[in-house]
Amino acid sequence: MGLTGATVKTERVGIIGAGQLARMTYQAGIALGLTVRLLADTAEDAAALVAADVETGSPSSLEALQRFAQSCDVITFEHELLDPNDLLALEESGHILHPSASVAATVFDKRRQRDAMVKEGLPVPAYIDVIDGADDVLGFGEEYGWPVVVKLATGGYDGRGVWVVENSSEATRLLEELSGHALLVEAWVPIERELAVMVARRPSGECVVYPVVETVQRDGICHEVFAPCSLSDALEAQATAMARQLAEAIDLVGIMAIELFATKDGLLVNELAVRPHNSGHHTIEGCVTSQFENHLRAVLDLPLGDIALTGHAVAMANVLGAPDVLDPQAGLASALGVPGAHVHLYAKEARPGRKLGHVTVVGDDLELVRSRARKAAGLLMGMERELT
Amino acid sequence: MGLTGATVKTERVGIIGAGQLARMTYQAGIALGLTVRLLADTAEDAAALVAADVETGSPSSLEALQRFAQSCDVITFEHELLDPNDLLALEESGHILHPSASVAATVFDKRRQRDAMVKEGLPVPAYIDVIDGADDVLGFGEEYGWPVVVKLATGGYDGRGVWVVENSSEATRLLEELSGHALLVEAWVPIERELAVMVARRPSGECVVYPVVETVQRDGICHEVFAPCSLSDALEAQATAMARQLAEAIDLVGIMAIELFATKDGLLVNELAVRPHNSGHHTIEGCVTSQFENHLRAVLDLPLGDIALTGHAVAMANVLGAPDVLDPQAGLASALGVPGAHVHLYAKEARPGRKLGHVTVVGDDLELVRSRARKAAGLLMGMERELT
Repeated sequence: MGLTGATVKTERVGIIGAGQLARMTYQAGIALGLTVRLLADTAEDAAALVAADVETGSPSSLEALQRFAQSCDVITFEHELLDPNDLLALEESGHILHPSASVAATVFDKRRQRDAMVKEGLPVPAYIDVIDGADDVLGFGEEYGWPVVVKLATGGYDGRGVWVVENSSEATRLLEELSGHALLVEAWVPIERELAVMVARRPSGECVVYPVVETVQRDGICHEVFAPCSLSDALEAQATAMARQLAEAIDLVGIMAIELFATKDGLLVNELAVRPHNSGHHTIEGCVTSQFENHLRAVLDLPLGDIALTGHAVAMANVLGAPDVLDPQAGLASALGVPGAHVHLYAKEARPGRKLGHVTVVGDDLELVRSRARKAAGLLMGMERELT
Repeated sequence: MGLTGATVKTERVGIIGAGQLARMTYQAGIALGLTVRLLADTAEDAAALVAADVETGSPSSLEALQRFAQSCDVITFEHELLDPNDLLALEESGHILHPSASVAATVFDKRRQRDAMVKEGLPVPAYIDVIDGADDVLGFGEEYGWPVVVKLATGGYDGRGVWVVENSSEATRLLEELSGHALLVEAWVPIERELAVMVARRPSGECVVYPVVETVQRDGICHEVFAPCSLSDALEAQATAMARQLAEAIDLVGIMAIELFATKDGLLVNELAVRPHNSGHHTIEGCVTSQFENHLRAVLDLPLGDIALTGHAVAMANVLGAPDVLDPQAGLASALGVPGAHVHLYAKEARPGRKLGHVTVVGDDLELVRSRARKAAGLLMGMERELT
């Protein structure tokens, strides 16, 4: 950024993808006076509906990416459905990408993620790459015991692409179905609870780590996030140190989510995502600086903002598409009647299980803010709807 | 809002005007999943730069207003540069306007504002409509003493349209210059400090009043806003009651700002604005629900949100165009280095004295948050710029 009175050109930040993560990043960009452009699959994508400068094109078309990149000064992404080789091609054409193609190559593949964690000496569940199909999984099950967890190396999210396999016959059947897919197999871990920590890092090396949160997952889908998560000081410090270490090890620029398992034997690192993440939606109202704003600050190499909680307790509950596929707008009046409810709706078409919005509540009492967030989210999902 | 699972159409909120107030209202609308449309003077207006659905047209053309209204379910406005008769014509065409044309007719004219306050028995500075030009002002000066304050009845803002007149010869000269303008003259009041209070009210009658703030004005332009303003409980209650009384008296729907003078003899009501207001920008981070979100909730008859402060102290400092017309983007890196600084830039062309952005800081200590907000705003104005 210039220090003189000369004409200042606002840098144009391009986001590949236009779902709710781009939508919330776009809101943060408005405040900072930035120019944020989007590459959307369709003009009806959650962020495309609200943004002024949207290009449509497939994120899996290098041609579309190259065309989009022409009018951006720095490029980032909101999902992992990208070919790291395409990202490398963008960099080789002279475009600035944050996080980099190299980070994407490491993190988009769950096997390479794990390798990076191990290289840093971080605790992870036992795992191997599946190279020889069912034989590898059977051998792994023999060695570490059943059940085991089989995962797609790339492309899985919200519980998709993950299977808990109880025995060798299930393994054989599953591996036939998944023939041709890159897989890893890992030990099934008895989890006491799931935690997450967000970290932002800018090119200059400045790095901030958000307070650790507890996440409530069902069927692999995040339902709730809350903080504080009453981790011991030692474990909170360990989680924070691991987040910082990983961010530095991969030379992260931007925001990263780290999912952790709390077990009776301590913390294990589960997975990484190098983008704004559901585990950080509470930061919009619940932390001084949101994950979305810190992501933008990071990719523009601006000073990172304070990550402290804004209250004693903060809770976020997701609004998931109900089985009878209600439009959450129908519950907006009821939900806004819940004290302190910060409602975020993504304007996405309602489908069962789809993330359509979230609600955050900040306050003094953790159980109260959790129940209020759940109550408001429930009302948006068509449950317990009341007259207002 | 419907309570059943039937298809829900999101109501389209149209905002007449596309400056920074519409820009920040637009951000609030994204969170609620609303469809917000703008009528902008030009495509380069602060809000037009970031919004997806912008119509360009003059707010003083009834034809443009009628065209815009066709695709809106409820219409509101972000400035007073409108003819209340045009707004009445929109209502007569069947469009829903919040605040109503009747409210606009009362509040857009500073004489009718005062009449409404007096009718409600609220304390105001002595005033008269100027009907017979200089003679009225001279007579008023004789009766109430010099100086007096002469104001344009309509169209003044940010210190424009207000003159402190020291004596009869100045009055004669000024009234000649202002020949043909509707004017009022009022007693000059020794002000100890200036205060403001925001109130939101929805059609159902629900009404919320924000904590009273102190505003720091120079040359009629707001430089700073902060809370708490250490008013006695009795005066805080009086200000709150007056805000509620006025909102009910004029049948307000939407948000309203009430500027107050604190004098040694108590509070006087100065002026009203029925739109989001600079005295409420601190509410984005400094109150649980921002003035922008509560304005949208009010015009859609949704439950109003909690207006409590989010911290012990909150301060807002405006970023005003510097004499050497620096682009505030040049100071963004420095400003973001100030702890807790929430920077809002409006992407407006820099001109001396123009409101280009603002900074809010929330914290425990009022003097500290005030100095940090001023510091960050100063850096954006090109002062004390530091390397980061």
